[in-house]
Amino acid sequence: MKAWEKNIRKIAPYVPGEQPKVKDVIKLNTNENPYPPAPEALEANKKFDTDILRLYPDPDATILTEELAKFYGLDKENFFVGVGSDDVLSIAFQTFFNSDKPIMFPNITYSFYCVWADMYKIPYTCPKLDGDFKLVKEDYYAENGGVIFPNPNAPTAILEPLSTIEDILMHNQDVIVIVDEAYIDFGGESAIKLLDKYENLLVVQTFSKARSMAGMRIGYAIGGKRLIKAMNDVKFSINSYTMNQHSLLVGSKIIADREYFNETLKKIVNTRENAKKKLTELGFTFPDSKANFIFVTHEKYKAKDIFEYLKSKNIFVRYFNTPGIDNYLRITIGTDEQMEKLYEALEEYIK
Amino acid sequence: MKAWEKNIRKIAPYVPGEQPKVKDVIKLNTNENPYPPAPEALEANKKFDTDILRLYPDPDATILTEELAKFYGLDKENFFVGVGSDDVLSIAFQTFFNSDKPIMFPNITYSFYCVWADMYKIPYTCPKLDGDFKLVKEDYYAENGGVIFPNPNAPTAILEPLSTIEDILMHNQDVIVIVDEAYIDFGGESAIKLLDKYENLLVVQTFSKARSMAGMRIGYAIGGKRLIKAMNDVKFSINSYTMNQHSLLVGSKIIADREYFNETLKKIVNTRENAKKKLTELGFTFPDSKANFIFVTHEKYKAKDIFEYLKSKNIFVRYFNTPGIDNYLRITIGTDEQMEKLYEALEEYIK
Repeated sequence: MKAWEKNIRKIAPYVPGEQPKVKDVIKLNTNENPYPPAPEALEANKKFDTDILRLYPDPDATILTEELAKFYGLDKENFFVGVGSDDVLSIAFQTFFNSDKPIMFPNITYSFYCVWADMYKIPYTCPKLDGDFKLVKEDYYAENGGVIFPNPNAPTAILEPLSTIEDILMHNQDVIVIVDEAYIDFGGESAIKLLDKYENLLVVQTFSKARSMAGMRIGYAIGGKRLIKAMNDVKFSINSYTMNQHSLLVGSKIIADREYFNETLKKIVNTRENAKKKLTELGFTFPDSKANFIFVTHEKYKAKDIFEYLKSKNIFVRYFNTPGIDNYLRITIGTDEQMEKLYEALEEYIK
Repeated sequence: MKAWEKNIRKIAPYVPGEQPKVKDVIKLNTNENPYPPAPEALEANKKFDTDILRLYPDPDATILTEELAKFYGLDKENFFVGVGSDDVLSIAFQTFFNSDKPIMFPNITYSFYCVWADMYKIPYTCPKLDGDFKLVKEDYYAENGGVIFPNPNAPTAILEPLSTIEDILMHNQDVIVIVDEAYIDFGGESAIKLLDKYENLLVVQTFSKARSMAGMRIGYAIGGKRLIKAMNDVKFSINSYTMNQHSLLVGSKIIADREYFNETLKKIVNTRENAKKKLTELGFTFPDSKANFIFVTHEKYKAKDIFEYLKSKNIFVRYFNTPGIDNYLRITIGTDEQMEKLYEALEEYIK
């Protein structure tokens, strides 16, 4: 080892889902939306004046926070935007989790939480989900440095009712509680309505799932103005200009189109409910999903084998080689056509 | 103070240069390029298929690193790309500066260095520039945890010769040395040619200045494959997908256009050399600039007063209220027309 290698940070990096470069793939592995973004995206891109790229973007991302504020009936100072919800969450960790006490999140959850905690040297403990992968709310009554969990949870797709969220908030009024709602629009009730009552609550959402814009990288936090200002202070201390001109413009244009948004959601929810029937017929079991993916296991076939088989058929689903969930597959809800091909492939494998 | 406020990170955030929202402003305050990006940007934007926004971007940013590799005659594994050079530098701090010994950078330099060091709890010392704002290379012979400086330096615009860079590298072979070359294309010689000899060297450049793309947010590091891999490991542990689909596509298309690049540079350099004459005639003095800005002071007039006066005329330049440089203005080189208006305003003020 060279002397200069000594101080290089040692880290086991997060491994994102594959982005296969081959064509004609059925991609059900990273919870992307199978439908394109609202038509306003195309229009905004057409009108985009590339000459403005010579100028730095507005560091406050005002056109975007203003549109979000209109959509949710809040003020623009209630919104922090970042380069996908991963950026938003990472900054939230740096901003709010500075206690010596451990932060808490479930043992089976979005795998980035422990990566960020390690990265920023934040102590953490991970209460176990119960045998049905449900959150045990009493575990979060323990003293802690903050709480974070996704709702619906990932990769289980299980939605916790707002009463559970409120119970956790009631028992954690001295720390920041973050509810990561990447998948909330597919059938959940947002904790946004608790913001008035709990000023220590931060809700995080994204354009990547329900809004079909994973490739644009826009995430946002919704919270009290004091929390949002604290996040902006940290953001300005890392990189003042994160949202580029094109994201700001195109992103801001699609928010108002509620009709397209609701229509897309409806299609995905219909396909998901049908998938539940089909996958049950094929012998799979799964926790009830309120997200745009289903977390399935099969009594007779190993998840890893099914994963490899599907991959050989150019159907990509997600497999986590993680103790406790290593016999499960996370299958993103695609279009009806894509799902039919999945069922056909599975039928062939299982018969 | 509420209990939950206790663990919020206290930080004095970096204050970026104003992005005035009024129109018809002459904006010479954030070192943007006065010319639009290469015409390929417009073409690429026209062809951009917004439907692909539904998919996550390639986390390895391959089309961009491949084009950079072609431009510089290196391999794609020699390039790390990020959301502007601020993102790249911030990740470099987290990746390489993990020693207990202080890192070193000049006392007058890019103001983000100390912000990142504070943010990531990295100890640092700041050797003083000499009376002419020049780097004292012998100061960097001291034991340290890493070295970083911009070349040309900001906000002084002074270029250090490659021999000085190499001298610092020779005396610092056990730590990572970062040369921040945001402004190198305006007349400097890049340290890239030292990469073969010093595997602990990292060179950072950007699309924001010479390439007229501040609004696109693309920066990159060039270095040995071991260093680039270490940075990618950290990046994947914070946010796997930072470069959005549009940045990757449009960014990759403009790199090959050397003709437009050289033409734009030539225009800016000509305007800068003319500005040196004009500003001298107006009684300003300044270190010789090899960047796209000039760092000026005036014997008779206070920098802050000139700054306020110009602002009242809708001409924005940059003023730093920082000890040691608080009687200086940093003036970005605009178009000839913009500069004429600046000279006129200054003549009026000074006469």
